[in-house]
Amino acid sequence: MTNASNTPTEQISVWLSKFGAALERGNLASAVEMFAEESYWRDLVSFTWNIKTLEGQESIQAMLHTTLPEIKPHSWRIKGQATSENGVTAGWFTFETATSKGQGHIRLRAGKCWTLLTTMTELKGFEEKKGATRILGTQHGVFRDRQSWLERKTREEAELGYKTQPYCVIIGGGQGGIGLAARLKRLEVPTLIIERNNRPGDSWRKRYKSLCLHDPVWYDHLPYLPFPDHWPVFSPKDKIGDWLEMYVKVMELNYWHSTECQDAQYDEMAQEWMVTVGRAGQTIVLRPKHLVLATGMSGMPNVPEIPGADSFKGVQHHSSQHAGPDDYAGKKCVVLGANNSAHDICAALWEHGADVTMIQRSSTHVVKSDSLMELALGPLYSESAVQAGITTEIADLLFASLPYKIMHAFHIPIYRQIASRDADFYERLQKAGFLLDFGDDGSGLFMKYLRRGSGYYIDVGASELIADGRIKLHSGVTINQIRENAVVLTDGTVLPADLIVYATGYGSMNGWAARLISQEVADKVGKCWGLGSGTTKDPGPWEGELRNMWKPTRQPALWFHGGNLHQSRHYSQFLSLQIKARMEELSTPVYGLGEVHHLS
Amino acid sequence: MTNASNTPTEQISVWLSKFGAALERGNLASAVEMFAEESYWRDLVSFTWNIKTLEGQESIQAMLHTTLPEIKPHSWRIKGQATSENGVTAGWFTFETATSKGQGHIRLRAGKCWTLLTTMTELKGFEEKKGATRILGTQHGVFRDRQSWLERKTREEAELGYKTQPYCVIIGGGQGGIGLAARLKRLEVPTLIIERNNRPGDSWRKRYKSLCLHDPVWYDHLPYLPFPDHWPVFSPKDKIGDWLEMYVKVMELNYWHSTECQDAQYDEMAQEWMVTVGRAGQTIVLRPKHLVLATGMSGMPNVPEIPGADSFKGVQHHSSQHAGPDDYAGKKCVVLGANNSAHDICAALWEHGADVTMIQRSSTHVVKSDSLMELALGPLYSESAVQAGITTEIADLLFASLPYKIMHAFHIPIYRQIASRDADFYERLQKAGFLLDFGDDGSGLFMKYLRRGSGYYIDVGASELIADGRIKLHSGVTINQIRENAVVLTDGTVLPADLIVYATGYGSMNGWAARLISQEVADKVGKCWGLGSGTTKDPGPWEGELRNMWKPTRQPALWFHGGNLHQSRHYSQFLSLQIKARMEELSTPVYGLGEVHHLS
Repeated sequence: MTNASNTPTEQISVWLSKFGAALERGNLASAVEMFAEESYWRDLVSFTWNIKTLEGQESIQAMLHTTLPEIKPHSWRIKGQATSENGVTAGWFTFETATSKGQGHIRLRAGKCWTLLTTMTELKGFEEKKGATRILGTQHGVFRDRQSWLERKTREEAELGYKTQPYCVIIGGGQGGIGLAARLKRLEVPTLIIERNNRPGDSWRKRYKSLCLHDPVWYDHLPYLPFPDHWPVFSPKDKIGDWLEMYVKVMELNYWHSTECQDAQYDEMAQEWMVTVGRAGQTIVLRPKHLVLATGMSGMPNVPEIPGADSFKGVQHHSSQHAGPDDYAGKKCVVLGANNSAHDICAALWEHGADVTMIQRSSTHVVKSDSLMELALGPLYSESAVQAGITTEIADLLFASLPYKIMHAFHIPIYRQIASRDADFYERLQKAGFLLDFGDDGSGLFMKYLRRGSGYYIDVGASELIADGRIKLHSGVTINQIRENAVVLTDGTVLPADLIVYATGYGSMNGWAARLISQEVADKVGKCWGLGSGTTKDPGPWEGELRNMWKPTRQPALWFHGGNLHQSRHYSQFLSLQIKARMEELSTPVYGLGEVHHLS
Repeated sequence: MTNASNTPTEQISVWLSKFGAALERGNLASAVEMFAEESYWRDLVSFTWNIKTLEGQESIQAMLHTTLPEIKPHSWRIKGQATSENGVTAGWFTFETATSKGQGHIRLRAGKCWTLLTTMTELKGFEEKKGATRILGTQHGVFRDRQSWLERKTREEAELGYKTQPYCVIIGGGQGGIGLAARLKRLEVPTLIIERNNRPGDSWRKRYKSLCLHDPVWYDHLPYLPFPDHWPVFSPKDKIGDWLEMYVKVMELNYWHSTECQDAQYDEMAQEWMVTVGRAGQTIVLRPKHLVLATGMSGMPNVPEIPGADSFKGVQHHSSQHAGPDDYAGKKCVVLGANNSAHDICAALWEHGADVTMIQRSSTHVVKSDSLMELALGPLYSESAVQAGITTEIADLLFASLPYKIMHAFHIPIYRQIASRDADFYERLQKAGFLLDFGDDGSGLFMKYLRRGSGYYIDVGASELIADGRIKLHSGVTINQIRENAVVLTDGTVLPADLIVYATGYGSMNGWAARLISQEVADKVGKCWGLGSGTTKDPGPWEGELRNMWKPTRQPALWFHGGNLHQSRHYSQFLSLQIKARMEELSTPVYGLGEVHHLS
């Protein structure tokens, strides 16, 4: 199909121009023929007004058949130089649809498309005001009764939620809600964040005191305002808290702190939400057109019900309530769980002189932070990536360009390399009785995160404490019963305890819909997160994308936003564009709205 | 000397390598011969441990003769591609000295150096930790009694000034002190800012409410953390206040707000300052090695003494105390002065329904904001400059590369163009009696700013109000006497008045030395700012650089920092390196310490 002597750039250019022409002619057969038999088209909003991966020619054809008449794509143009490696020719491009501009990435094998990514970057006529189009800030000339920026801002803040209604309400003012609100602000969508804590950043500040981000700084930038270049690789929790608080201020986000959402009901007639919140002793009903739950993957604690828990004389709390080790020097501490928080909490308790026991119920994936940074994240998110010209935007798009269906195949060799490089480490850990895994298929940490949002520890020190017995370990068991001053394990072991920490994770985000809206809506929407991979805690059928995240759900005008800082940053772009399009009453026909296969 | 067929890059490369070789051989005659008869070498700290322009071969030779043995420059290397235009070949380069790394800019004419800029970028062995060398943020491993970031920070803040002493104290926590403190923080110089206001940014917030920056956003970035790309062209004062407050927080600066410096004395024996401050009802004596006055060009109000002022029944205050127009609708307001603040205050009063009269004592330079942005600042600080690859750093260095001695010659044609483009505007203004000038030599706004720090208005609307008489104007007069309800002008005119605003400018920064230290030290140091140009309010002799700014003064360990946001950003780099070098006890022989010709 293409001349083998063509440069990679020519190959991509030719492919794009033929593909664009076929689409403009409405010749689906020709267009679809340009894809390989194994092929993936991942679309972030541009074609589907959804977040959707089409897998194989047939599903690509079906999507095009439905969307093409309205989407009217055109102007496919290569951007920069394409590259060729191991038989894969890859390149960047831009394109337009009837209502939007976009950019994308393509990989060809033997002249045919293997992976295609299309992403919406802006809505025509509703572009963000930045660079040359930024606002002036002052109004030159003279105007009777001119109001200052502060006066306008103060009035708008006082009126929002009372005299005027936000178009969008975001429940949850953590990193997710904040980044999304910043994007909506730039798109001029009136938005209000509701947060129960006193200050932006408190959702970080209130965690156990030794917490530092487990992801490195290059992965963690918020939209628009990157961290300065001295920012630590792993942000301490209070420092990231301060950054978020600052961000809310300088991005001029409307943020109601100390405000609790009590109830949210969708008014079908008015096509708007009634969101009841408690603020400063007052009950206020907000009437936004859209409601975003940005309550966090780690927002809804799982606390197991264990017989006898009521009789416990010591302190017991979920890991999200655990402030740190300071009160427990010399005390007997039992931590139930063996994921990130459990390890961090155990290590901090040990560092402060507690007697610590970890109860590992099932196997955990452990990877040393250094190895993870170097081998898994380094190529896209690291100082050397920055030096190689891989900006945050490029890294995010490259990451997004890999379809979930085949992502594990790229990860398995990386984790094999890690297993070999750190073989001694893993051996020591297993000798201590630690139940280790690398995921059902050996694909490691990030796939576990996508599939189930749990099941791993990024080792920053605790594993050595476990390996040499300074943190005591009981594995393959759980707590069967709690007594006044002890826990009893399923194997009959009795462990005296002054403190029990339930590092037992969090429930699905649609639990928040159940709590704030209704069980009916939670069930209508179904489980959030997970790919339907058929691996542990991620039952099939295959979904191809994370369930319900950043895209339309079965409940009109209800959206779920969350994930780590990378995901919040990147996907907030697409969620904000979807909401802006609706505010401007653009046509937004959703292709392939997800089926509900699981309730939670 | 050079082959005319050489490319610009080759010409610069050859010049640099010959020059470097001559310096390494200590052959001053050969080195100096490479400069044109009219030539300038501007050195920012690298050679002179001073901010110094050497003018002509003789003074270049004298400087090299003194500095070369210790400075030991080497490794002169071109950076990027040189350019050639109108007979001037220009390029960038890097170089090293015994203790530092630097970068510079050079212009050749007919193969000889016309202008040379050398700037220090870092001290070897004391580089800022950034990018690949940034801190980890957490400590991997396990450590008994580990302290969290917050605990360490809280303890350090509690101890600084009490149990531990800052190496440097900065009086004044406005944009200047803040930017400098950020640089010192990155250089790990323990620094404490003393600020009398309650919050960082209050020095902006407390100004008249209509105030927006007169300089555009591209000119105003602080070090390390640029404004995001939607930031308004002209920041409203409260918005810049919020940014500064955020900056202090996220850059982790030690900032004592609500603290007044009462006295500062240099202890010659101990070679340190005793700085007495009042904080939270306590008197505290700090003992820093260095003291920086960052009290602002606009920190020390000039209030004229006018007979009868005591008897005035209305409100009278200096422009720095004027909050805004809200209380003066329908009132008779007299504003003495005709510079930026006077115009802004008059316009806001008129906009809010006051009866406004401006008293213009002497001629003022006026330039429309649009024209100034487009013709004067645009080439270096604008969106199109950004698009052309002129980063803030490049713009700052290019700006710095032009010696003050010849700068006016570059500005005169720009202002001639402005005068012609806005001829109608200027004619209308003069018809209304406004006394207009373009500086003694027609070199316009920025030269006035450098020479005297005053004498201009960047028109954002008020001039039209003056031109059409909505703001009444009395020019060429001043207030001779004040009565209970009126002012009497020198021409006998009596103006009824409810409000008098003294928009009469600010005194020299060494007035702060007089107030905080002693008149003796203020006189020892002499006048700050100004070039000695022999123009109005800038008496000679010629200094070649701004007096006393960002460089050693005649008072050991006393420094002056200030200027607009551009200058504060750029020169804080050189002041911070000078202080860091002293902290590390590097040899810092100062070449050409300024003579004192004027006391204020």
